Amino acid sequence: MDPKIVTGDEFFFSGLNKPGNITSPVGSKLTQVFVDEMPGLNTLGTSLVRIDYAPNGGLNPPHVHPRASEILLVMEGTLYSGFIASNSKDPNIRNKLFAKTLYPGDVYVFPRGLIHFQMNVGESNAVAFAIFSSQNPGIITLANFLFGSWPPIDTGVLARGFQLDNNIVNDLQSHLWVQN
Amino acid sequence: MDPKIVTGDEFFFSGLNKPGNITSPVGSKLTQVFVDEMPGLNTLGTSLVRIDYAPNGGLNPPHVHPRASEILLVMEGTLYSGFIASNSKDPNIRNKLFAKTLYPGDVYVFPRGLIHFQMNVGESNAVAFAIFSSQNPGIITLANFLFGSWPPIDTGVLARGFQLDNNIVNDLQSHLWVQN
Amino acid sequence: MDPKIVTGDEFFFSGLNKPGNITSPVGSKLTQVFVDEMPGLNTLGTSLVRIDYAPNGGLNPPHVHPRASEILLVMEGTLYSGFIASNSKDPNIRNKLFAKTLYPGDVYVFPRGLIHFQMNVGESNAVAFAIFSSQNPGIITLANFLFGSWPPIDTGVLARGFQLDNNIVNDLQSHLWVQN
Amino acid sequence: MDPKIVTGDEFFFSGLNKPGNITSPVGSKLTQVFVDEMPGLNTLGTSLVRIDYAPNGGLNPPHVHPRASEILLVMEGTLYSGFIASNSKDPNIRNKLFAKTLYPGDVYVFPRGLIHFQMNVGESNAVAFAIFSSQNPGIITLANFLFGSWPPIDTGVLARGFQLDNNIVNDLQSHLWVQN
Amino acid sequence: MDPKIVTGDEFFFSGLNKPGNITSPVGSKLTQVFVDEMPGLNTLGTSLVRIDYAPNGGLNPPHVHPRASEILLVMEGTLYSGFIASNSKDPNIRNKLFAKTLYPGDVYVFPRGLIHFQMNVGESNAVAFAIFSSQNPGIITLANFLFGSWPPIDTGVLARGFQLDNNIVNDLQSHLWVQN
Amino acid sequence: MDPKIVTGDEFFFSGLNKPGNITSPVGSKLTQVFVDEMPGLNTLGTSLVRIDYAPNGGLNPPHVHPRASEILLVMEGTLYSGFIASNSKDPNIRNKLFAKTLYPGDVYVFPRGLIHFQMNVGESNAVAFAIFSSQNPGIITLANFLFGSWPPIDTGVLARGFQLDNNIVNDLQSHLWVQN
Repeated sequence: MDPKIVTGDEFFFSGLNKPGNITSPVGSKLTQVFVDEMPGLNTLGTSLVRIDYAPNGGLNPPHVHPRASEILLVMEGTLYSGFIASNSKDPNIRNKLFAKTLYPGDVYVFPRGLIHFQMNVGESNAVAFAIFSSQNPGIITLANFLFGSWPPIDTGVLARGFQLDNNIVNDLQSHLWVQN
Repeated sequence: MDPKIVTGDEFFFSGLNKPGNITSPVGSKLTQVFVDEMPGLNTLGTSLVRIDYAPNGGLNPPHVHPRASEILLVMEGTLYSGFIASNSKDPNIRNKLFAKTLYPGDVYVFPRGLIHFQMNVGESNAVAFAIFSSQNPGIITLANFLFGSWPPIDTGVLARGFQLDNNIVNDLQSHLWVQN
Repeated sequence: MDPKIVTGDEFFFSGLNKPGNITSPVGSKLTQVFVDEMPGLNTLGTSLVRIDYAPNGGLNPPHVHPRASEILLVMEGTLYSGFIASNSKDPNIRNKLFAKTLYPGDVYVFPRGLIHFQMNVGESNAVAFAIFSSQNPGIITLANFLFGSWPPIDTGVLARGFQLDNNIVNDLQSHLWVQN
Repeated sequence: MDPKIVTGDEFFFSGLNKPGNITSPVGSKLTQVFVDEMPGLNTLGTSLVRIDYAPNGGLNPPHVHPRASEILLVMEGTLYSGFIASNSKDPNIRNKLFAKTLYPGDVYVFPRGLIHFQMNVGESNAVAFAIFSSQNPGIITLANFLFGSWPPIDTGVLARGFQLDNNIVNDLQSHLWVQN
Repeated sequence: MDPKIVTGDEFFFSGLNKPGNITSPVGSKLTQVFVDEMPGLNTLGTSLVRIDYAPNGGLNPPHVHPRASEILLVMEGTLYSGFIASNSKDPNIRNKLFAKTLYPGDVYVFPRGLIHFQMNVGESNAVAFAIFSSQNPGIITLANFLFGSWPPIDTGVLARGFQLDNNIVNDLQSHLWVQN
Repeated sequence: MDPKIVTGDEFFFSGLNKPGNITSPVGSKLTQVFVDEMPGLNTLGTSLVRIDYAPNGGLNPPHVHPRASEILLVMEGTLYSGFIASNSKDPNIRNKLFAKTLYPGDVYVFPRGLIHFQMNVGESNAVAFAIFSSQNPGIITLANFLFGSWPPIDTGVLARGFQLDNNIVNDLQSHLWVQN
């Protein structure tokens, strides 16, 4: 930003009190405040997202943030949440799932680049905020990116990599993958 | 942390749904979740604080974070919030106060190391979360540190620096400065 | 390392001329030289891996490196290689697959944290080196981590996230997932 | 800088042997060599300032540098210098003033973002150089920024935060705050 | 790069399977793939070079990389390779040469900014790849830069610094210094 | 440092007003204040050195700092000072010497890792301070490290690399190389 034209609006964003539309197939919605939405975040190294989850299984599906660690702060509802540790020489850590049921006021940490998810296991709506160590953390929802890229990944790569029949892969690639 | 003894509890913290005790002289309370409170934040570059404000003037007084930028997210109440831009050759920026009245769902950014504050200008309690770009941002509440350090700063330094009479400085140094 | 006991061996590793055992289910093998294998890499910000691929479809399956960008250098064989761009407001980039057939002497870049893969589309063995911008890049092979973590991820999370029937998920979770 | 038009002058600055004008209200003067004054410092991570102090109390008043640590090197005179440690769980550190009387050839360190100051306690002029870990450390002179911002901070914020009567705050806000 | 015009070619480079021309005076040739050659490396923190060495003494002469650590990977031939540790208070490290004869498949590390070299001590061509922890590591071949800069360094500086007669320095400065 | 045992002495160093002993063969002396000399510099990203130069040619010989950029501040005397730009595709920069005669109060910048030097071209002592962008910049005096390492570098490497006869190299390697 040219400092001569800073007005103060660059440092402001509103509307995070409003529930997101949770009618997506996975039953959740992200409302992001990254540097694209709030230019004043440039060079500041942090950003956030509001996450709304539908009752009874609303899911923020397994994903990674390529450029940030995350803290999840639960505001409402009950969330089953987890992350999978990275590869390691230590068999006590390698591929281990760290998971926990979270309630309002609970905080959980997902280290940079690891696969993580949350699912609403309660009967009412759930709300959480995710805060990041980057102004532009990126969001890679794994199913969407693997089976919904354009052009699609070669079927053979996915079939062999996921030990799936080609026809299942083709079927997955024909789904409509909607970003939550 | 020795990876061999990671249990998963290092990545968890609870209780941020509970209001802080706002009976301090300034009428606010910080509940911090830094790396000291949640060891799993080590090397992850982010942390957060819950801030509670008493009605009618509850104040998170002017302070700086020496090692982090901050995003403030308002949950309840009405907050008059501002920060002062750094020195600059440009007179349109130098010493300028950027301030705004914030409502629930509003977000405001305080760049690294700049003086900032919030005051509850509503008639009910207010609640906000502050998120940081460091696992250990530090909090330097300016009045407390200037007039409440131990041993105290030489009276002459404060009197000349703040253009105050020595007896006012002495009076300030005799106050009880409580961290909110 | 205590500098008093540096011998020089910390900076040396051998054997990257030897083919890896490519009998794994995906038909590829990683031989890694990270800071665990070569202590002298500590604080130096780089590391590498040799990758061997079986003929006719040997696959380094879709994976991410949580802490590093990568350059792939092809030594032998013909590799179909690609990565998927991150989410973006720009529909010309969002979820886009960048893929290319690579030959000996070709170099391809995978930015930090993005999903990528290579498949040997030739009829002889293939060999490549992957070089990283971290001493400890991490390797998260997506199928293995999603369906082979311990304890397993809740079936419902994977079924809804990947739009798969529960019984397909259960079947996938019962596979033997071997790290290549 | 476009490397095609580098002349070498970008890496040069002169005049730091000349005393600064110490007739300001606080009796000191900063002559800064930051990236604005010397473009060749861009991306290099360091910069410096010459500080002149009037005899008998010339003061570099309490201030913070939002983006840098500092080393002070005393060239002439006798300086009472100090900094206040950050907040901490450890009561042996929290809010503690580290202060010392410094003579020519002495060096003192002020960690990033902490409040610090120097006062000339000798009867002749004093001179020091401050060196920084940033090309653009920023200077926030606390009294000037708190009481001399434009527009001014709400009186109530300062009165409650500093435990001062409103009329004292109003008086302070009407002063002329000159940057040294 | 403007993401709207990314084509994928930015992430690709070819030809590293082709031997470099080793007829230079030192008998070696660098083929570099830095961010200038492959724009997709921008911000990614890594790059590489192919090095070809003539038989019987082909030399990659003593040099430093001002902005990167390096891993050397030997593909063909036999290389005598070494680096000199930095200054240190510890006499067991200070100015110490760490050197080793390397064979195909061997890896050796040169920490950031240290003097290092390789010489082909075999009777056939040698080939290696050097990988870096920067997109733009820089190459400062010491003899070329010391004796072949333009304009030349004052003869007296080099004569006294290298304990050489002025006429030897003048002779060295009149050589043709070719970058390998 | 364990914060429980911080005394304040970690942040203090004295004696930089005292001239260094300039009887070394090159006629200069470095008095360094790095993290080894002042533990409080740990993590702070800056440090400094006092440099004394004998009259009529006292030389701080060509050297590099592997981990820091430098600002030189001249206190007394007249210094011929220069640095050599890195390799570049641009022939207007490549191998170019940027040099200047400096007087008291002059400041000159040496970007990270580049070869630089200063020579006292006046008839009286000269004094300068060098300030760095690292707590531990490292000092590699090129002649000393190239010709005075232990064990010595193979004569052939130096002879071919510097285009010198073997007997000149052997002679140089038999010199006593004293760190200034």
